[in-house]
This record gives sequence, C-alpha cells and structure tokens, in this order.
Amino acid sequence: MKSALITDFYELTMAQGYYLKKHNPRVVFDMFYRTNPFNGGYIIFTGIEELLTKLENFRFSQEDIEYLAGLGAFKKPFLDFLKDYHFHGDIYAFDEGTPAFPGEPLIRVETDLIDAQIVESILLNTVNFQSLIATKASRMTLATKGRGAIMEFGLRRAQGEDGAHSASRASFIGGTKVTSNAYAGKKYGIPVAGTMAHSWIMSFDSEVEAFRAFAELYPDNAILLIDTYDTLGSGIDAAITVGLEQKKKGKKIGVRIDSGDLSYLPKVIRRRLDEAGLTDATITISNDLTEEIILNLVNDNAPIDSWGIGTHLVTGGTQSSLNGVYKLAAKEEDGVFIPTLKVSNSYEKTTNPGIKQVWRFFDMYGSALADLVTLADEDLEMGTNIPFYHPFSTQDFFMMKKKNYATFKPLLLKKMEQGKRLYPEINIHEIQRRSMEMLTEFDKSYKRQINPHIYKVSLSSRLRELKTRLIMETKAKDDQNG
Amino acid sequence: MKSALITDFYELTMAQGYYLKKHNPRVVFDMFYRTNPFNGGYIIFTGIEELLTKLENFRFSQEDIEYLAGLGAFKKPFLDFLKDYHFHGDIYAFDEGTPAFPGEPLIRVETDLIDAQIVESILLNTVNFQSLIATKASRMTLATKGRGAIMEFGLRRAQGEDGAHSASRASFIGGTKVTSNAYAGKKYGIPVAGTMAHSWIMSFDSEVEAFRAFAELYPDNAILLIDTYDTLGSGIDAAITVGLEQKKKGKKIGVRIDSGDLSYLPKVIRRRLDEAGLTDATITISNDLTEEIILNLVNDNAPIDSWGIGTHLVTGGTQSSLNGVYKLAAKEEDGVFIPTLKVSNSYEKTTNPGIKQVWRFFDMYGSALADLVTLADEDLEMGTNIPFYHPFSTQDFFMMKKKNYATFKPLLLKKMEQGKRLYPEINIHEIQRRSMEMLTEFDKSYKRQINPHIYKVSLSSRLRELKTRLIMETKAKDDQNG
Repeated sequence: MKSALITDFYELTMAQGYYLKKHNPRVVFDMFYRTNPFNGGYIIFTGIEELLTKLENFRFSQEDIEYLAGLGAFKKPFLDFLKDYHFHGDIYAFDEGTPAFPGEPLIRVETDLIDAQIVESILLNTVNFQSLIATKASRMTLATKGRGAIMEFGLRRAQGEDGAHSASRASFIGGTKVTSNAYAGKKYGIPVAGTMAHSWIMSFDSEVEAFRAFAELYPDNAILLIDTYDTLGSGIDAAITVGLEQKKKGKKIGVRIDSGDLSYLPKVIRRRLDEAGLTDATITISNDLTEEIILNLVNDNAPIDSWGIGTHLVTGGTQSSLNGVYKLAAKEEDGVFIPTLKVSNSYEKTTNPGIKQVWRFFDMYGSALADLVTLADEDLEMGTNIPFYHPFSTQDFFMMKKKNYATFKPLLLKKMEQGKRLYPEINIHEIQRRSMEMLTEFDKSYKRQINPHIYKVSLSSRLRELKTRLIMETKAKDDQNG
Repeated sequence: MKSALITDFYELTMAQGYYLKKHNPRVVFDMFYRTNPFNGGYIIFTGIEELLTKLENFRFSQEDIEYLAGLGAFKKPFLDFLKDYHFHGDIYAFDEGTPAFPGEPLIRVETDLIDAQIVESILLNTVNFQSLIATKASRMTLATKGRGAIMEFGLRRAQGEDGAHSASRASFIGGTKVTSNAYAGKKYGIPVAGTMAHSWIMSFDSEVEAFRAFAELYPDNAILLIDTYDTLGSGIDAAITVGLEQKKKGKKIGVRIDSGDLSYLPKVIRRRLDEAGLTDATITISNDLTEEIILNLVNDNAPIDSWGIGTHLVTGGTQSSLNGVYKLAAKEEDGVFIPTLKVSNSYEKTTNPGIKQVWRFFDMYGSALADLVTLADEDLEMGTNIPFYHPFSTQDFFMMKKKNYATFKPLLLKKMEQGKRLYPEINIHEIQRRSMEMLTEFDKSYKRQINPHIYKVSLSSRLRELKTRLIMETKAKDDQNG
C-alpha cells in the first residue's frame, strides 16, 4: 500500500468540496514543464513506471482516515468515501526515459475531478524529481564523451532516503552504470559497486597492508583508495606494490583518487602505473564532481577510467527541482469534454487546452526533426505538408514539408486504464537501453552542454485555433465581469 | 524495521573484510561539516531524533540477506552475522535543533568498527539533509522579520517522497508554521494547511461561485486564490464580494496571490481590501519564493501576512546538500583508545583527533560567546582564563577571560547506549520551540543573511597539542616509508 495521504492538504479540502456539492465531472489534466533544467536542451522523462505502481496501490489506511477525522475539517460521508477510495483513472504518458521538451504534455490523466486532484502531488513529486536526476545523469554521461563510466555514490548527500533511492533509479536510467546504494540495488535491480573508505586504510597499520587485505578478499574488484596520506608518495607506491602482487595472480587493480588536483594527479599516476607495468590498472576519481568538472577533465585528456559522483548527481546541484506542473485541460459538461485553459498575465504561461497528443517527426535516417502537439482526435496525414505553429507567438510558424520527414509517431501512450496498469513494470536495464537509444535520435546540437539548439515543439493548426479562441473568450468574459 | 541495506555497498564489503580478519576494534567516529550552507553563519542541526529511531530499528531482513547472497560477494559466515546484526553503539550528539558551526563534532558514535561503518550512510543521509532544510527554514523565517508566517508547500517539488516528508519535519523545526503535506502532518504531528488550486476556480462557472462555495465549507479558513484570470480585476472583486458576505456572518477571509509582481500586487490589494472594510482580510503570497525575495519584499514593506513556500525551502534551492562527513577519531588498541587523524593535503581538511566534547560559552546575559572543542576527559575550570586556539592556524588564539564569560555547557550529550535510545522521541513543537530559543542566544550579526560575522569554534590547548603531535608523527612516518 502507498498512503494516499501523500497529497497536499488542499487536494483533500477541495475534494470534500466537490464531493459534498456532488460536483465531480470527468476531467483531463496534463503534466508538463516549462523550462529545461541546467540551461540544457532536453529532459529525460522519468518516474512514470514507478508512479503507475504507486497509483495502483494508492489507498487511505484506517489510520490515515482516523488522522483526517481528528483534524476536524472533514465530514463523515466524505471520510467514508476516502475509505473506499482508489485511483481509477486512465493514464497516457510518454514512455519512461523518453527525451522530452518544454510545453509537451508528458502525462495525461483522464478521470473524475476528485480522483485527478488527489493524485496530483504524488504524480508531480515522483516525475519532477526523477526527470531532473535522469537528465542530470544523461548530461554527465554525455560530458564524459564515452571516456569512463559513471558510478553513482549519492546516498549520504541525497535529500532523504527516497531522495537517494529514487535518484539511484533515475540516475541509472539517465546513463550511470552502478550505484553505491545497496537498498536501491535491491529495490530496482541496479548493479551495486563501491571501493573502500579512508577509514579502511586508517584501521590498518599501513597502506600496503590495507590494500593487500582488500585485494585478497576482492581480487576481481580491488579499487584502492590512494589519497589517505600522500597520493603521489605512499599511496601510489603501496598501490603499485599490491598491483604487482595481484598481477602475478593474473588479477588487475584500480586506484581511486578522492582529493587534490583531479587533472594533474591522474596523469602522473597513469605514468607511474604504466612504468610499473600495470597498464591495465584503472583510475577512478571522485570528490564533488560536477558536469562542468567532467567536461574540463575530458577536454584536458585526463586519463580517467571511471567517475564516482554523488552530491551533484543525486540532488541536481545548483538546480534542485524541475518545475513540472499539472493543469486542467478539459472537463465534461453534459456528456462532452469542454477544453479549458488558464490564461496567465505572462502569455508563455497560458496553458494549451483540450485533450492532446504529441507527435514526434523523424527524417529518413531516423533523426528527430520536431514535435507537434495536436488535439487527440486529429488525424495527421502522412505524405502531406503539415504546418507547425509556435506555441505562443501567433505569427511564427513553419511548414513540415512532406519531402523532409519520413515518419512520425505518437508519444502519449496508454499506460493505465481505470487504475490498472496495462503491462508490468519494465526492467530497468531495458529502460536505460531504450532511453539512451532514443537520445541518439537527436542531433548533438540539441544535447550541447552550453547554449544548445532549441528543439521545436509546435502546435497543430487546430490546437492553435482552439487556444486563440479560448483566450479571446476568456478575455471577453473577463471584460464583461469587470 | 528500517532496512540496514540503506548503506553504501562499500560499507558491507569493508565490514566483511573486518569480520573475516577478526579485525573489529572499538572505534569513535565524528560527524561534522566543513562550511556553512547558503553563505551563512550557522546551521540548525537537525535529524538526530529521527536518526536514533531509525538506528534502533536498523536490521537486515531475510529478503535483504537473500539479496546480498545473490550478489556473490559475501561469504556465508558474514551473511549469518548480518542476519543477527543490530546497531549496538553509544551515541552522543547535539540536541535536535541546536545552532551549530563548521568543524564541531555534532555526533559522536562509539562502537565497534563494523557497526560504525554500517550506519555511516543512513546517519549522513538523515542529518545532512534535515540540517540543510532546517537551516534554510530558519534563514527564511529570519528574513520575514516577524512579518507573516511561512507555510511549507513543498511536496510536489521535493526530491522524492522522503525528500518531502523529512523536509516538512526539518522545515518546521527551523521555524515554519504549517505544512501542506498531509502525510508529514500525520507522521510528525506538524499542523497541516492549504488554500485552493486554480483548478478549483476553473471547475466553477465564475470566481464568485468558486469562492463562495469554499467559504461556506471552510468559513474559518477561506483563503481565496485570486489570480486565476485577472488578479486586480475579477479576482479581487470576487474576493471582496465573498469577503463582505462572510463578514456579515462574523467570519474573515484571506486572499492568495500566486503570480505577477509580488511587491506591487499586495499593496494594491491591501488598499482594495481596506477600502471595502475588510481590514482583517489576510494576504498570502506564493510562487517560487526564495530567501532573497522575502528579504526584498519585507524591506519594501509589502503588506504580506503569510508566505507559501515550496521548492526553494524543501530542496535548499541553489544549494542542495550539506557537506557533512563522518570520520574516524579514535580506535582501541590493547584496551585503550588511540586518537587518529586523517592528514589532508589541504590543512583545513585535517580532522581533529580523539574523543571530544564541545562546550558553548555564554556571557552573563545568556549570549553565546564562542564554542570550544576539547578532549572529552578534559576538565574545564569555571572562573579561570581559558585559551581558545584557532582550529588550524597554529599562531592564532585568544584568551576567554574569566570576567567575560558567566557559564559554559557541554553540547555533546548522550542520546543512545548500546543501541537503545535513552529517552523517547521529543514532540516536534517542543523541538521547534527550543531551537528557536537557542537561536536567540546568538547575536544577530552571526545570523545576518549576507556576510555574517563568523562565530568562533576553537580548540583547547590539549586538543591542539595532540593534533599537532599526530600531524608531525604522520608526516615523519610518511617520510620514512617514502
């Protein structure tokens, strides 16, 4: 069971309002986000698979109901209603791990109003965070330019326990190779790994003894931490001593550096290892690594085989949240869905109305060209020119010419019907593989770390017309009232 | 039960090493942090009470053991050992909510080496995050200068579920008044509150109807969200209409503004409310508020009664982690504790050796003067001059003159003995009260938002001598080896 109390309190006070007023129409809510994190060009949409499982098990326990009753704000009939509550909506969403862009509806929830509101907070909590971290992991992975795998070491600096576990999951989907978090390893099936701490070395009389003891125990995974006392002195000397012993046994070692200059030290240490004949010994670095540090070290040709990254990977570093929101797009009146929108004083924040679909267009080489947001009941005709309208500038549009695209596919796929998943949770290795494959569909200019090319997300002609009409109607109504 | 798998994998591989080599001496570990977050002058040390409860229940389940067995890295005797494992150490720590400073041992763990390593990750995970958020909440609370309470609205942008719940707890300890997170409300006994969402208003035909329906249901807590369509038009008009209706019933309303200029709008709205005779109507603002925005709005005299804050409060915003670490300070050899230290290439990172205590000195008015880190077996004599040595500069010291201090008290207090808490978890309201009271013991210059005065944390003469001696010995040994 997942406690349905994991919701903002106002969802429950509003839900009681709807319940008592018998005002509970069917509605459609969209989850989308407005700006790319890390000044980047995309996000890796993540968390949906875990969210579906949470929603299947989302219930108020007897204890939860008693807690709510004790607050004095809720009436008996509504509390009885909550007692039997379970999420019973339909969910359409992008596949877990899909590269996604601002303004696209990534999740579409179709259910009654009360149901839609109660799940808002857990939906945003799950998807905002995991998408943030998968994106950070993806960016860090790209920053390595294929030179060395990233090990996620975030547990001790993560934001709470689930902030660690969910981050391990998301980070793996974004491209990291292993986690240090044993619990996340078990929960999600992520490979676990680790090296040794300074305290291991300090608990022995010398570094050689400490390294030797470790290598005997873990001959296939002996990554020796060499910076406890003097990295370029006793540290590397002891590692070479033990490395040569292991070599005789047909085993190789690695070293880890957790302090000092992470460009200079690997170069010197690589040379020392090579000179000693330990050319297959690996070098792992750690110590508050950021995306920017990775970029610099890779550009500087630092001979690094593996990156141990914690804090900035699992928290997002200086950007610690994704600004995903959940907005009403349509509500049923007299048996039909009426599109709704929230007009904002800032035009770019005005939402896109109606029940929508997102289409990704590809060229003949399988490269993604642009995404088109349409109404869900629109038919796109292959082999025709299709106009792509700017999401808020009314003058701006371009024609997707039939000769320029080879195919398109819908991105919002049905994942859940009446509160039941339509397929079991997908293996995390498979999610990672698919996600990284999808990312290769995008030109590298969209994935540039700094100042990326902006991938186009446009509106169809019908959606744009609907939006314009509704804005005009809202303003007219507003003028009447005022 | 709290799964003991919530640990970094290397803790387990190291633990197996110690176990198989029968090398498991008693040790002392310190948790401390090195730099204040948010460029500030202090932290609010938080998380220890919850940590103690976690540690009392820290166990490997049968399932956990099977998972570890499946990894192939662990031998049967060690797995059997883990099956019976429970934390059995002694813990000394600062009281929950104590203002604390860089370099002070905030938690001292005394147990055997294996035990101390297995709990490292959950200890740091719990305390690093909660201290970060309590500190942020404290800073935001100070930024309001007593003008309006802070409501914590972070669930949807928090880092995972526990990133939300733990943040609600820590934030309350730091000074916020309520949370929107119903689960945290139940789990920790934090008062819950909320207003209404834009979707509430959009689901009615007009703002007046939406507000009226809400005020009827929640006459004592009707905070009306006025920015769905036009804040200074239909929004405030509708709120005044319903406010006047409520006034006749002897009830008052509030309004919330979630967009637009948060300095200008409250001023205009305050005037509109006052002119309508609704002088007791409150104004709540929200929308990505940061500490800096609060400071500016307060300096600008914006008439704000309440602040709804999510993202930047519960994630720390641009600083999303506290750099707390956990280091070996002593280990037993032949029945006595030998102090240890880790020498670092950067002298300020060299740890303080030995089993330590921290003393806070106060003047006759109860103002905190400075903290002194001593060896735990040192006797401080009241009414004498006591030298305070700089933690790493060898020349720098000052004399705490007997005429200048009135009293001192130890901050590391015994909380747990052989894995058992020495007292039950403290009520969160009491923790908040004590914490805020302790913060008043510090001159406001230490709590300044920008460029604060640095509160002194010094070493006693004996501790400084020990540290100097050990550094020399380490370097001498290193030279011999090299």
